[in-house]
Amino acid sequence: MSLLGCLIKSGNNLIGTCSKMCYNIFIVETVCVAWFSLEFSLRFIQDRSKLTFFRKPLNLIDVVAILPYYITLLVDGTSKGEKRLGSGSSYLDKVGLVLRVLRALRILYVMRLARHSLGLQTLGLTARRCTREFGLLLLFLCVAIALYSPLLYLIENEMAATQEFTSIPATYWWAVITMTTVGYGDMVPRSIPGQVVALSSILSGILLMAFPVTSIFHTFSRSYVELKQEQQRILQRRTHFLLRSRMAGLGSDLSMESDILFPIGSPETREMDN
Amino acid sequence: MSLLGCLIKSGNNLIGTCSKMCYNIFIVETVCVAWFSLEFSLRFIQDRSKLTFFRKPLNLIDVVAILPYYITLLVDGTSKGEKRLGSGSSYLDKVGLVLRVLRALRILYVMRLARHSLGLQTLGLTARRCTREFGLLLLFLCVAIALYSPLLYLIENEMAATQEFTSIPATYWWAVITMTTVGYGDMVPRSIPGQVVALSSILSGILLMAFPVTSIFHTFSRSYVELKQEQQRILQRRTHFLLRSRMAGLGSDLSMESDILFPIGSPETREMDN
Amino acid sequence: MSLLGCLIKSGNNLIGTCSKMCYNIFIVETVCVAWFSLEFSLRFIQDRSKLTFFRKPLNLIDVVAILPYYITLLVDGTSKGEKRLGSGSSYLDKVGLVLRVLRALRILYVMRLARHSLGLQTLGLTARRCTREFGLLLLFLCVAIALYSPLLYLIENEMAATQEFTSIPATYWWAVITMTTVGYGDMVPRSIPGQVVALSSILSGILLMAFPVTSIFHTFSRSYVELKQEQQRILQRRTHFLLRSRMAGLGSDLSMESDILFPIGSPETREMDN
Amino acid sequence: MSLLGCLIKSGNNLIGTCSKMCYNIFIVETVCVAWFSLEFSLRFIQDRSKLTFFRKPLNLIDVVAILPYYITLLVDGTSKGEKRLGSGSSYLDKVGLVLRVLRALRILYVMRLARHSLGLQTLGLTARRCTREFGLLLLFLCVAIALYSPLLYLIENEMAATQEFTSIPATYWWAVITMTTVGYGDMVPRSIPGQVVALSSILSGILLMAFPVTSIFHTFSRSYVELKQEQQRILQRRTHFLLRSRMAGLGSDLSMESDILFPIGSPETREMDN
Repeated sequence: MSLLGCLIKSGNNLIGTCSKMCYNIFIVETVCVAWFSLEFSLRFIQDRSKLTFFRKPLNLIDVVAILPYYITLLVDGTSKGEKRLGSGSSYLDKVGLVLRVLRALRILYVMRLARHSLGLQTLGLTARRCTREFGLLLLFLCVAIALYSPLLYLIENEMAATQEFTSIPATYWWAVITMTTVGYGDMVPRSIPGQVVALSSILSGILLMAFPVTSIFHTFSRSYVELKQEQQRILQRRTHFLLRSRMAGLGSDLSMESDILFPIGSPETREMDN
Repeated sequence: MSLLGCLIKSGNNLIGTCSKMCYNIFIVETVCVAWFSLEFSLRFIQDRSKLTFFRKPLNLIDVVAILPYYITLLVDGTSKGEKRLGSGSSYLDKVGLVLRVLRALRILYVMRLARHSLGLQTLGLTARRCTREFGLLLLFLCVAIALYSPLLYLIENEMAATQEFTSIPATYWWAVITMTTVGYGDMVPRSIPGQVVALSSILSGILLMAFPVTSIFHTFSRSYVELKQEQQRILQRRTHFLLRSRMAGLGSDLSMESDILFPIGSPETREMDN
Repeated sequence: MSLLGCLIKSGNNLIGTCSKMCYNIFIVETVCVAWFSLEFSLRFIQDRSKLTFFRKPLNLIDVVAILPYYITLLVDGTSKGEKRLGSGSSYLDKVGLVLRVLRALRILYVMRLARHSLGLQTLGLTARRCTREFGLLLLFLCVAIALYSPLLYLIENEMAATQEFTSIPATYWWAVITMTTVGYGDMVPRSIPGQVVALSSILSGILLMAFPVTSIFHTFSRSYVELKQEQQRILQRRTHFLLRSRMAGLGSDLSMESDILFPIGSPETREMDN
Repeated sequence: MSLLGCLIKSGNNLIGTCSKMCYNIFIVETVCVAWFSLEFSLRFIQDRSKLTFFRKPLNLIDVVAILPYYITLLVDGTSKGEKRLGSGSSYLDKVGLVLRVLRALRILYVMRLARHSLGLQTLGLTARRCTREFGLLLLFLCVAIALYSPLLYLIENEMAATQEFTSIPATYWWAVITMTTVGYGDMVPRSIPGQVVALSSILSGILLMAFPVTSIFHTFSRSYVELKQEQQRILQRRTHFLLRSRMAGLGSDLSMESDILFPIGSPETREMDN
């Protein structure tokens, strides 16, 4: 946690003297990125078709997570050179913003966990399978927000003394926070008709959210069972293959090998073929 | 989003010089309304029974969404004429309020999506089928609010130092916000007996909301499957009909044609007959 | 809504001049209570066993809802007399408090709806059947609150600068509001260890609430189906009985009649025998 | 409730004159702890294998709940002696902190309820069986927090005027409170892109929480049925055993007796063997 805060703070004083702790973090990050880069390039070299390699979402996430480190290094070097030439501050501001965005992208390292966790893979599979339900949920929410927000904005501005609801887009935010039952309390209807509208929007929000959640859950548990069975089948085949290859010598059935070496990719590509 | 804010702001300075952006939005809206009006009148002319046409909810929504544009145009012209005659500001205020309500009604354009989205149609069908459950949910909520609010009002006014709960209707608002677990935090019980009442009202709120939500969900998923099957049946029949009409010439079976041309209306009317 | 506010306000200026509107409300209430009393006494007279009559919860609620009106009338008359004698204000304060509590009890008129709504009867039946689940829910909540509150109180008072958590009972309130995901925001942990405790208490709260809610829901839907079938059976028998009594003359089978005249009581007593 | 507040307050003025009420509470606690200690030592003596006795979670909780009383007594005596020697306040502060932590641990007395409540035992069994689901829930939550927090921090600090989001760890707290729909309202995104991020984090939070909750619930209800059957079987066997021992004299089958005397331990040990 303090790593990220430190990295982003160091983005603010770009050419300042980096503190002792930040220096240590920099070394840790360099080692990590070096390891990730090595592992990534080995997987890239070993893959037969280079095109399908970049089409898998997990590999794309790797690229987006590793690249920022090299770009930051490059830009840091360049900006140090430009500093001596005395370029304007507006240009440096833009570079700083880009750097901060790139630094925030490093958080995608976390997604590398998905390679090793069955739960996160199931989540990804569920997300791909339930695109229709997610769309439905968003559509319902958008329609309800679009209907309730102007109504409440009109009522509150006509009837309430305080003007918390400054515009209709601001009222959209109120509708989102209310319909999901989060309820921050930064915008609260004060007039009685506005409170009646709020009640109906809360009730419809609870009902609308309940619809797709349940069907998404069923897809999730089904996907989980499927992925678990597939993993066990692959494990059995791998054990069987190792036994056979010890007995009969290696190198006979390549088609099986490719399936064994990339077991995680198989449910993905199977999904994409559907 | 900015469109609506702009339209409503333009309602405030009624006869002022409309800015460049508002003018562009006005042109876009005119084109849209012209297209909607054309499509609506064509559907109206083509329909055989004019009475059942206006009984369908989707057509009524169309009328309520399109009409405000024409009324606004008319009133704008009239009020400009009256301005020259120097009428009082109280009259203009009322006209402005009506105009703002009419302008807010334009948001019903969104409901036209229901014609083309299976999800929104399912939502409408579920709403018609679950009237009893919705009534039950509202009845439970009202009874619980009516029981807890006076209790908390009495306790808080007797025991707490601060007077946040000014009246029993104001306490109704607290009960709604608490029982749906939204929790804005604008009204919070401070005395210990009041907090015990709050705990029991939260628990009963969670339980009461859970009852009808689940049965409404089951109706929703059943309706979705039904509507999907009906749509596919209609699609098959339409394909079949087109093939037959190419082979045998057009115009033999009119009863089938009417069913094909208005496939969306059929589940609605079937529901209303029940 | 304004009725209640008015009644309670009239409790504050006990002997003051009652306004025009309050007077009208008083007349409406007198008529209602007269009707309720008549209906109640008729039911009491007609019932065979007077003891079981007062054991039914719905009849008890009627008593508690109707009695306050008469007590208020009596006390009002007495206090007017005592006013003339110039009794101390501390005595009048106590009488006023009792009157306000009694006036708030009138809200139990709402529960009379339960006599005519199948949904509310199902709710009552579910509440009687799920006593064990409700107890479990409360036990889980109490244990979790008792474990998390002292922990958070200790952490926040040691580590955070602001002293929002004044005592452990006050922290109980925070735990209730957080674990039910209401989140008023009047008490918020500020230190990082406190926020970790808050996260774990939120998660355990969501999980604990989920356990009994689902099983309570199943009992509710089962009870609803049962009560509906029973109601239909009674309706059929009543129709059948009316037909038979018209054909054969009235008064032959009294055992059946008693079942027909008090159909609502039967599931209750059946429950109590279990 | 006031007991605990009193105990902790008495921790603040360590050597001050304890008030009358605190003294009474001290006596009540001494009696309770004496009883608990007696009961615990009897169970310890009667148990055959002393090692497995300390491996059972319920016994460990007993130790942690009872020990603090004796340690507090000891430290209180020692610190009184040291007070006379005039030791520094920093040392006393540390002792005070330890004492307050130990005093807060007494709340674990509550967990002794688990010995007698089937519901709490089911909860413990569910927690042991659903370790995988709890881990999944935490993993999902952590990944979502790690992805949304830096994004929102960056957006809010670039675009919003107010600086509520001071650091990324502080934004983690916002993400937790928002994704669980608690919504305290102490940190609220103000810029429109930040609010869009908030909407997507709320939706993903609701969906993520829904996944493991349902499967945990199924495990809970299955465990409950199992524990109930086991309890009834043990009760039947105990009744049967008592009948037989009355008829045939006591002391023949010891293996059965040990199962009867510690019925609660059996599902635990069975679980641990799995």
